[in-house]
Order: sequence, then C-alpha cells, then structure tokens
Amino acid sequence: MYGDGVFRTIHVHDGKPRWWAAHMAKLAADAERLAIPMPSRMVWERDLGSLLSSTPADCVLKLVLTRGPGVRGYGPAGQSLPTRLLTASPWPAHIETVAARGAHLHLCDLRLSEQPRLAGIKHLNRLENVLAAMEWADPTIDEGLLLDGAGRVICGVSSNVFIYRNDALFTPRLDRCGVAGVARELLIGIAADLKLFVHETDIHLDELLEAEEVMLTNSLIKIWRVARLGGRTWNAPRVSDELRTLLNA
Amino acid sequence: MYGDGVFRTIHVHDGKPRWWAAHMAKLAADAERLAIPMPSRMVWERDLGSLLSSTPADCVLKLVLTRGPGVRGYGPAGQSLPTRLLTASPWPAHIETVAARGAHLHLCDLRLSEQPRLAGIKHLNRLENVLAAMEWADPTIDEGLLLDGAGRVICGVSSNVFIYRNDALFTPRLDRCGVAGVARELLIGIAADLKLFVHETDIHLDELLEAEEVMLTNSLIKIWRVARLGGRTWNAPRVSDELRTLLNA
Repeated sequence: MYGDGVFRTIHVHDGKPRWWAAHMAKLAADAERLAIPMPSRMVWERDLGSLLSSTPADCVLKLVLTRGPGVRGYGPAGQSLPTRLLTASPWPAHIETVAARGAHLHLCDLRLSEQPRLAGIKHLNRLENVLAAMEWADPTIDEGLLLDGAGRVICGVSSNVFIYRNDALFTPRLDRCGVAGVARELLIGIAADLKLFVHETDIHLDELLEAEEVMLTNSLIKIWRVARLGGRTWNAPRVSDELRTLLNA
Repeated sequence: MYGDGVFRTIHVHDGKPRWWAAHMAKLAADAERLAIPMPSRMVWERDLGSLLSSTPADCVLKLVLTRGPGVRGYGPAGQSLPTRLLTASPWPAHIETVAARGAHLHLCDLRLSEQPRLAGIKHLNRLENVLAAMEWADPTIDEGLLLDGAGRVICGVSSNVFIYRNDALFTPRLDRCGVAGVARELLIGIAADLKLFVHETDIHLDELLEAEEVMLTNSLIKIWRVARLGGRTWNAPRVSDELRTLLNA
C-alpha cells in the first residue's frame, strides 16, 4: 500500500536466471536497509523453480519483497511475514535492436529528489520514475535521462549511466538518489579486470555531452551505448562493444 | 507495484463519511496531478454504500485510487482503468484520550526529501513515513514530527502542524514536501472566519519550540494540541479547544 518493499528485474536465459547470486545479494542488502526480513535463498529458489516450470526459456523475471500485511497507518505491524511475489514477462525483442544501433535518450524535465536513507535501494516508491516515463510518447525514444535538482546526471529511468573519457569510465555517485543496479556493479568489476579505472563521482550534464561514449546498463539490456541525446549524437562504439561482450559472457 | 496512486483516510461517524465533499475534491486534485483519471463521485458513493452497509456506524474509511493494471516497467500502459479500493477499520479509541491530555511527540531523525512535483499530494510513495514511524517503540509517543533537510518543520508522520503565537496561526508551506490534508484546509477556513490570520510559511524547529501552542490536524484526530516534544512541554490549551469544537461541528 505504501510502496514498502524492494524488487529485482532479472533476465532468464535458457531457463536460468542470470546473475542470480548478485541479485540475491543486492535484494538482501536492500531489504536490510528497510528492515524487511529477507527470506532464505532456498525459499526464493523453490518459488523460482515452480514459476519457471511454466514459462518460456527466455523471459523477464521480477522478484518483489514487501514488508507484508499490516494494519492501517504507517506504524510497524509487529511480527508480520514479508510477502514474496514472482512474475514472468515476455522477453522484449527491442533490446538487441537498440543494442545494435545505439539508444536514443530523452532528457527528463523531472528532477530526482535527494533522500540518502533511500538512495541506491531498488525500492517500490517509484512515482518519480513513472512520471518521468510519461514525459515522452515518441516511440523512437528508448530511455529517459534523469538529473537531480543541481543538474547532476544520476541515472536513466530504468538504467544506470556510465561515460567514457580519457581512457577511464565515470559513473554517478548514488548516495543521494538513484538506484545502484546489479549490472552497474558487475560492470565496475569487469572494468577493474581490464585496468579501466571507474570513478564514482558527480557528473554534470555538460560532462556527459562531452564524453567520447555514453552507456546505459541494467540486467536486461546489459549495456546499451547511447547514440543520441537531443542534438548530440555519438556515431561509433568506443568501449561498449567489448564491455557488453564481457558482461554477457 | 510502484506506489502509483493516491488515497484518503476518512472518519465515518453515525454511518456517514465526514467532510466527504472536501475529501472528494482533494482526491480529484491529487489524481489530476498524477494524471490518473478520477472516477465520478457517483461511482465512489455506490462503492461506499456497499461497504458501509456491513461496517460499524463509527469507523475509519480508506479510499485508494491507483493508476490500475499495467505492463512491466515504468511506461504508461495505455488505456488501463484506474483501480478503486475501499477499506474500513475500527475507530481508534486513543484519539479522544490524546485529545484530552495533549499529544506527546517524537522528533524524527529522518529528514523529508524535497520533490515539488509530488509535494502536497497524498500519494502512495510513503516509505519515508514508514521509516519515520519505525523510529520509536515507546507507546507513550503519539506522533512523530518531521523536518526537511534544512531543519524546517514540515508535518507529523500522519498529520499537519500548526503553531499559535502572537494571536496568529502559522503552518508550514507544503510546496517542497509534505501532504496537504483536508483537516488543514478546513482549519485554515475556520481560522479566517474567526479573523485569526494563518501564515503558510517556513517554520524552523526553534520557532515551533517557542510557540504558545502547537497543534496537529488530520481527518481522524481533527485537532490534537501538543503537550510534549523532548524536554519542552505545553501545559494548557490556548486556542485548540475552541478550534477543535468548531472543526468537529
């Protein structure tokens, strides 16, 4: 009722959830920050087995964990059990198309609010994302880019952002707002293996526009390079092809 | 799934929802700000008649309106119909007890974030309220007081705040965060009838602590005077008794 929960969106490929251990770890960490008891991995895997027995081998899996049934009002309800919800949706065909041509971004008018207590968590209070996603109707737009009130780049509506410049990667700090995704975390690890330094820092919009390459990440798209934002275009991949191959592997 | 909706909490007394017209107007205004189609008053009244036929004559009514079923992801789902949800809960006996002795407040550590696009709306993204309500377990505490990041008083966890000083009322601006409740709106109207000026303004915590009287409002409590916040106590009502009688009338 109050968006009082956390969730994950997961790529199921050949009947197996990709990056499962990383998703379980992030779900547990997010649940802990909201003081929601995390069911054991065995419980999730039993649910998952039951769901995947009747879905296509490639699909999108969503896991939701809420604080569970409560009484009216905001106060804690005592010993209520958290609620688990698992759903499967068709695999979106446009992901590979956009990966091949590069993503077209809309710069959102909505500015993200700052709440350090919730920053980084993939929680269910997502009205900002819903309002941002309502800003464009143009079907050639693939994603919206979100700034905070100070004009700093934070994330896409459903993705994290990286920029490549001077042989290094830069990605926004997510300690004031935004969601820290699993693909972002894995990409940071892969970049370290390649000795490609990743700076988690403030990135202003003009710095993004001056980047040699801009990339979006999430668990479904893995990496999309950005081809267009307003009048700025990026015509050829620089590091995104190699990073996408490694992240997909 | 994303807290993508609005709601009202209403006192049903002698089988009738109090301040019904004001609640319908506020629900419509909030829904419009989120671009959720508002069902007609006739539709709500039909639902209400059906619900109240099986509830006690005095209870708490909650109305919820969400954007309705959608596809996975944040994007608009097209022509989906909004979902209406009505629930009744028992009337809380402590309301009159606290009204008689004055409310004891906890000063919340959590600071409200600023989002002008959502400020004032009673929407379902209420994780901040849930986390704030988890801050105290002391059963002698009746309500939590919430500040913004700059230390300005905004509201209670489930109520609005007024202070009385120098023959005038002051209540926080709600254009950056907070919920603008129906009881607040009605109290502002009553004060105007009494030639008691109401200033909607920034109120810092020290100004609240120096007030001659502090009051909380919502549709269930109507008005609670505050008797205690930390070490500060207020021992006798100044204007709250008269305002509560008028608001209840």
